[in-house]
Amino acid sequence: MNQTKALFGSDLKVINLGLASFADSLLQTGAQAVQVDWKPIAFGETRVLNALDNLVGLDGELLPKICEANAEAVRRLLAAKPVLTRIGRASDTIPGMRQNLVLHSGPPVTWERMSGPTRGAVMGGLVYEGLAKTPEDAAQLAASGQIEFEPCHHHQSVGPMAGIVTASMPVWVVENTAFGNLAFSTLNEGLGKVLRYGAYDETVIARLKWMERVLAPMLNEALVAHGPIDLRNVMAQALQMGDEGHNRNRAGTSLIIRALAPHLAQSHKDKSDVAQVFRFLDSNDHFFLNLSMAAAKSALDPTQGIRHSTFVSTMARNGTDFGLRLSGLGDRWFTAPSPMVEGLYLPGFTAADAAPDIGDSVITETSGIGGFAMAAAPAIVQFIGGTADQALGYTRKMYEITLAEHPTYKIPALDFRGTPCGIDITKVVETGIVPVVNTGIAHKVPGVGMVGAGLVKPPMACFTEALVAFTEKYQGELS
Amino acid sequence: MNQTKALFGSDLKVINLGLASFADSLLQTGAQAVQVDWKPIAFGETRVLNALDNLVGLDGELLPKICEANAEAVRRLLAAKPVLTRIGRASDTIPGMRQNLVLHSGPPVTWERMSGPTRGAVMGGLVYEGLAKTPEDAAQLAASGQIEFEPCHHHQSVGPMAGIVTASMPVWVVENTAFGNLAFSTLNEGLGKVLRYGAYDETVIARLKWMERVLAPMLNEALVAHGPIDLRNVMAQALQMGDEGHNRNRAGTSLIIRALAPHLAQSHKDKSDVAQVFRFLDSNDHFFLNLSMAAAKSALDPTQGIRHSTFVSTMARNGTDFGLRLSGLGDRWFTAPSPMVEGLYLPGFTAADAAPDIGDSVITETSGIGGFAMAAAPAIVQFIGGTADQALGYTRKMYEITLAEHPTYKIPALDFRGTPCGIDITKVVETGIVPVVNTGIAHKVPGVGMVGAGLVKPPMACFTEALVAFTEKYQGELS
Repeated sequence: MNQTKALFGSDLKVINLGLASFADSLLQTGAQAVQVDWKPIAFGETRVLNALDNLVGLDGELLPKICEANAEAVRRLLAAKPVLTRIGRASDTIPGMRQNLVLHSGPPVTWERMSGPTRGAVMGGLVYEGLAKTPEDAAQLAASGQIEFEPCHHHQSVGPMAGIVTASMPVWVVENTAFGNLAFSTLNEGLGKVLRYGAYDETVIARLKWMERVLAPMLNEALVAHGPIDLRNVMAQALQMGDEGHNRNRAGTSLIIRALAPHLAQSHKDKSDVAQVFRFLDSNDHFFLNLSMAAAKSALDPTQGIRHSTFVSTMARNGTDFGLRLSGLGDRWFTAPSPMVEGLYLPGFTAADAAPDIGDSVITETSGIGGFAMAAAPAIVQFIGGTADQALGYTRKMYEITLAEHPTYKIPALDFRGTPCGIDITKVVETGIVPVVNTGIAHKVPGVGMVGAGLVKPPMACFTEALVAFTEKYQGELS
Repeated sequence: MNQTKALFGSDLKVINLGLASFADSLLQTGAQAVQVDWKPIAFGETRVLNALDNLVGLDGELLPKICEANAEAVRRLLAAKPVLTRIGRASDTIPGMRQNLVLHSGPPVTWERMSGPTRGAVMGGLVYEGLAKTPEDAAQLAASGQIEFEPCHHHQSVGPMAGIVTASMPVWVVENTAFGNLAFSTLNEGLGKVLRYGAYDETVIARLKWMERVLAPMLNEALVAHGPIDLRNVMAQALQMGDEGHNRNRAGTSLIIRALAPHLAQSHKDKSDVAQVFRFLDSNDHFFLNLSMAAAKSALDPTQGIRHSTFVSTMARNGTDFGLRLSGLGDRWFTAPSPMVEGLYLPGFTAADAAPDIGDSVITETSGIGGFAMAAAPAIVQFIGGTADQALGYTRKMYEITLAEHPTYKIPALDFRGTPCGIDITKVVETGIVPVVNTGIAHKVPGVGMVGAGLVKPPMACFTEALVAFTEKYQGELS
C-alpha cells in the first residue's frame, strides 16, 4: 500500500506494451510514457511456441547443434563466388531441360492452379517454341497434359515474375566457383508488355526471337572474349551506386554494359545489330536483375540440406502460392497463398488489376540484397513508393532476423555496414518480423503484362509451419 | 545575492559558448552542460564587421537591393540548361585561343609564380604542341616571354588541376541553352601520371595525341549522331547513383558511355579503335568530371556581373593562389595563398610531396555539387578519407552558406532534398563556414603527377576581402 502510494505520489514514468492508446492517454495527461513495439512471441500460438521452445536451451539461446548448422550455412553463403561464364541454350544447358518441359517460378503448381500471368507466359512460351500457333491453341496444349511443368528451382534455375523457361531460350550460366555449382536464368526482356509479366502478343514473341538470334549470341561472344565476370564484385559496386539488386539495377546494368562494350564493338556481326544490342541494353535498367538473381541462386544452393539448420535457403512465388525451403529440411516446400503487393501502379491500372505476389526474384532478398539492401537504394522508393527514411528502416529491421552481415555487400548510408543476410526462421517466428520484399506487379489477366511495383510481406504461415515441421523432424536429436 | 543563491541552489543547466573545457569540467562534476559551436561573427575583425553592418538593415536582414540581386543570381543558376553539343579543336572553338597562348586553371599567374604541377603541365603542353622538343626546352620557352598565359576562366573555359589548354587540344562544347552562353573544357585523361597533375613524359604526350587523333573525333561523331545531351539530366541521375560530380563520377561516366555506345558501335573507324575508345572510357571513372565542370561553368557564367549581388560566381585555384569572383564585382579576382589539402595519399607518397590546392574543378562546388553534394556520394570517403556520416554533415553545413536548394539535383540520403547551391559571401563571413571542397592532390615537383585526394578549406581572406571591397563599391547606393 505504501509502495503504491510512493509509486503514484511520484511522477509517473510509464513503459507501455500492447495497446498504444494507454500510452497516448497518459501522454495527453502530461505524464511520461513510452510505447514499446512488442508482439507476443509467435503471436502466442501454443503449437508454435512449443516448437520454438524445443529449439532453445535453458540459457534462452538456440541449441548448439542448430547454431553450428546455421554457422555452416552462413559460411557457405558468404564464401560464395558467383561468376558469370557464358550464355547457353536452355535445352543444352539446364539439367533435365526438354522440349515438352516448361519451367516456372515459385513452388510446384499445376496448370489448373496457375495464376493469370503464369498462364499467359506459358501460352507465350509455347507459341515462341512453335509448339502452338496461337495463344488459344497454347492454352489447350498446356491443359492437355502433354506439357510438363516444373519449378525453375528444381533445375538450378531462377526466373523473375512468371519465370517461364522453355527449351530454346538463351540462359545465363553463373558458376559459384567456391563450390562448383551452377545457376541459370533467362535474359531480361525489359519492362511493360513482356513474357515474364504474362504478356504474349507478337511484339513479345518477336522480342524473344531477336534475343535468341541476335542478342544472346553477341553477348556470349563478348562475354567469352572478356572472360568470366565476378558478379559479387559487380554487385558490391552497384550497392555503392544506388542499386539494391532487385527492383533497382541501373548501376549493375551500366557496369555490365561498360565491361562488355569493348568486346561488343569487335563483334563480327553487322554494325547495326551491335548498335541495336547497345540500344536494347541502354533501354532496360532491369537487365542486370536476372544476373543478380542467378548469382543469388548460385550462392544459396550450397546452403540447402544442412542437418539441424534453421537457415532459409529458398523463398519463391508462383503467383498462386508463396513457398520457402529450410536448409535443414532439404527440398521440402512450405507454402501459403501468395499475398497481394502494396505499391505504385502504372497509369491506367489499380490494385484491382493486380495478380498476387509472383516470381523467383525474392531469391535476392533470401541472399541478403533486394529489399534487405534498400538502404543502399533510397531512390527505389520512387519506383515502389515510400520515403528514403523508410528504405533505411527496412534494412535496419532485417538485421533482427538475419544471422550475418555481408563482408562484401556494404551500404554507404549505414556507414558501409554489411547487408543483413542469412534468414534464421526462428528469429522470424520469434520476432514476428517477416522478410521485406520489393517486387513488380503483374496484371491478373493473361496477356496484359506489368501494372506496377511495390512491397510485399511473405505469409507468416510458411515460416511457422516450417518451424513446426523442423522441430518434429529433429526432436530428440538436438540436445 | 538571493538570485545568485537561487541560481546555485538549483540544479545547474549550463549553455557554454567559447572554450569547450568549461562545459567539459561541468559535465565531469555531473552538472548538465551543452557546448554551443559558436564563433564571433567575422572572427570579431572590426573592419569586416563594419563592412557586414553596412549591408544589413535594422531588421538584421540583408538590404533589399542585395536580396533582389541575389534572387536574380539564383534564378539564373537554377534556370541553367547545360547541354553537351560537340567536341571542337581549342584554337577553332575557344574565343581568343591562339598558338602561343596557354590557358591555366585558377586566377591569373605568371610563369615565375607558377606551382610545380602547373609548370609541369605547361612544359608537357608545349611539347605536345611541338613548340618545344624537350620539357627542358619547353621550360625555357615558357620563361622567354614568347608564351602568353591566361586563366581558362577568362575564355569561358575550365580545366581540372593545372587546367592547361593548348591550341590543338580537343575540347567539349557545352551550351547553356537557357541563356545561350557556351563553356569549354578539355577531355579527361584519367588518373595518375597525366598532364593535368603536372606529368609530361612520353606516355602523357602519347595519350594526349591519341585523344586528339582517335578519341575526340570518334566521340564527336557519336555525339553528333546521338544529338545534344542534357547534362543537367545526367547529373541529376548520377546524384541518385552515388556520384557528387567532382571526385566521384563513376555513374556519370557510365551514363555517358551508355548514351554514346550505340553510335560509337556504328563508327566508320576501325573496330579496334572503337574497342580502344570503350576500354579507355571504362578505365577512367573521372571521365565525366570535365563535363560536370563545363556544365557548372556554363550555369554560373550568367550569374556574373549582377549589381549589388553578394553571390559567389567563381572559385578557382592555380596551385599558387586561391581566387574567387563575386557577382556584384564582375571580373575582379580576390586571391589568397592556395591552402594545402588534407587527404589520403597514393602508396609511396606523403603530405610532404603535395602541391597546394589547384584547379578549376571547384567550379562544381560553386554550382552546388561536388563537396556540397557529398551526402549523395558517401563512398567518396574511401577516396578522400572520412566517414559516411561526415559526408552527410558536409552537405548539411553547406545549407548554412547557400541561397537555394537545387530543384533538379536531389540527394536520396537526405530524403531527396535539393543540393545546397548559390554561395552568399555574407553568409560565409557571418558564419565563418567556408565552402567544403574535395579535390585531387598533385605532386609539388613538375613531372610527377597525382599523389592523392582529399578535402580543402578555401582561405577565408578571399571572402572577407571581397566583402570589404563590395561594401566600398556599393556603399551609399544600397539603402
